Amino acid sequence: MDEFGMIAAHFAPLAAARPGAFGLEDDAAAIPVPPGRTLVAAADALVAGVHFHAGDSAETAAARALRCNLSDLAAMGAAPHGYLLCLALPHETREEWVAAFAAQLARDQAEFGIALLGGDTAATPGPLTISATALGFVEEGRLLRRSGARPGDLVCVSGTVGDAALALRVPDPAPELLERFRAPTPRVALGRALVGLATAAIDISDGLVADLGHLCRASGVGARIQAARTPLSPPARALLRADPGLIDAVLTGGDDYELLFTLPANRRGALAGLPAPAREIGVAAAGEGVTVVGFDGAPLELPRAGWRHFR
Amino acid sequence: MDEFGMIAAHFAPLAAARPGAFGLEDDAAAIPVPPGRTLVAAADALVAGVHFHAGDSAETAAARALRCNLSDLAAMGAAPHGYLLCLALPHETREEWVAAFAAQLARDQAEFGIALLGGDTAATPGPLTISATALGFVEEGRLLRRSGARPGDLVCVSGTVGDAALALRVPDPAPELLERFRAPTPRVALGRALVGLATAAIDISDGLVADLGHLCRASGVGARIQAARTPLSPPARALLRADPGLIDAVLTGGDDYELLFTLPANRRGALAGLPAPAREIGVAAAGEGVTVVGFDGAPLELPRAGWRHFR
Repeated sequence: MDEFGMIAAHFAPLAAARPGAFGLEDDAAAIPVPPGRTLVAAADALVAGVHFHAGDSAETAAARALRCNLSDLAAMGAAPHGYLLCLALPHETREEWVAAFAAQLARDQAEFGIALLGGDTAATPGPLTISATALGFVEEGRLLRRSGARPGDLVCVSGTVGDAALALRVPDPAPELLERFRAPTPRVALGRALVGLATAAIDISDGLVADLGHLCRASGVGARIQAARTPLSPPARALLRADPGLIDAVLTGGDDYELLFTLPANRRGALAGLPAPAREIGVAAAGEGVTVVGFDGAPLELPRAGWRHFR
Repeated sequence: MDEFGMIAAHFAPLAAARPGAFGLEDDAAAIPVPPGRTLVAAADALVAGVHFHAGDSAETAAARALRCNLSDLAAMGAAPHGYLLCLALPHETREEWVAAFAAQLARDQAEFGIALLGGDTAATPGPLTISATALGFVEEGRLLRRSGARPGDLVCVSGTVGDAALALRVPDPAPELLERFRAPTPRVALGRALVGLATAAIDISDGLVADLGHLCRASGVGARIQAARTPLSPPARALLRADPGLIDAVLTGGDDYELLFTLPANRRGALAGLPAPAREIGVAAAGEGVTVVGFDGAPLELPRAGWRHFR
């Protein structure tokens, strides 16, 4: 497989919708930013065997690479525009793998309204490594930040939490749980709807408690959330009924790619009208730190707050 | 070494000059694009042992990662603004390495007027892998492209060619040659000066002949260049005097990061006033393909046009 041939056959078609990508045939891409908009940029690196299983499909690798980045844009309230993709491909990579990888990117491009703008491919003696930089636009001065939460704000979360972490923790997980790890759903429309409504937002990648901790530190507040109010999918609920100790995995496991955000208490009514399900799970308060109230009403002791590399 | 601690200690200071980087403490960066400007974005992936030697210093890794990207911006005529950096670090990476890597980035930021905007770090069981996405601005509608060369245009190149390739080819290369591999000089000011002057431009990464081939294909022209007019550094000239066969390495070795560009023949006089040395080496012509006229006046047969992954 020749580098230029691979780009022409599998990646150039992904760039066709953006004239400024120049068919991936120039040194860089041109991105005209609409008047009144600020560009928003997020980058993520994924390594096979670390961020996904080395044996996972090309589709999983593609979906995770793109969707984790889109989730970052969503957390800032940005509308996705495009992305640049750097691939370090193991020498033994077969063209079928590249074709399946690109086909998944094409499906996600259609779903989330983005297109490939540029990138680079290289061969590596190590594991597949994917880096993507996503670019989007938000109205000037309207960016969602982690830092705007105020004491008394409601702490809210979208969708359901813990599915991906449980898929990695339990033997023979339900297919719905596994799918949440393989292809997380970036809350793009929700992020847009939270512009001008939420006081702060973050996406859950490290874990609900860890990411709430990040939001609280950035905002200079503390928070108290109720474990019993954590939104759970039916298979997650069944697992926790059998083993309530799995609440640790739900609260600290990460890979949810849901939005965690704060609302002024007088905007509680807006929760019902959002483009994704979202639920109030607690409240921000003066002070610092995150307290999780357990099922028994006592504060939960969690073994670790969330995922870190290089421990 | 903790991921968050490493970012706070070594990378957040690199982002201090850009308020929209939010101290690397938010989900994404905000980049206000000035009115009348188009955003330009380029991405490069570098793998230790492939794009630089596995034993090369942290400084070499940093300089190559950033400067190759800046060279892509220069080829489009863009003024650099900032970059996002994805690092996959081997588990055994020491903090001293990270500190030296960041210190080199800081020096290059000062030299080229850019700052860190965001990124991601991960641990890898494989080789160090660096992906950077550089962002810059160019006046609307003034982008330099590969595709504007016309028959009769002069083919010109900046600086000297072949130094990096010779450093990798010969035993005991002169330090000046090695330095050109370790820390290429992106022709940022030259790229800006070529806006409105050059009809086409590309940076030389794959090799002079291969990249001239890319420019010619994009422009729908051919080109004829003179090997004897290739600009050589004094140590490269000495090596070629001893072994004229090394002209292959000079013309096809790559890693020059000089700008190759075309000028209307009536703008030849502008060459002397550019912010970097540049020389006419040939001419574009109707047709296709690149002909290199050798020292003896006959067309050179080159073993390969330039570097490709996945041959």
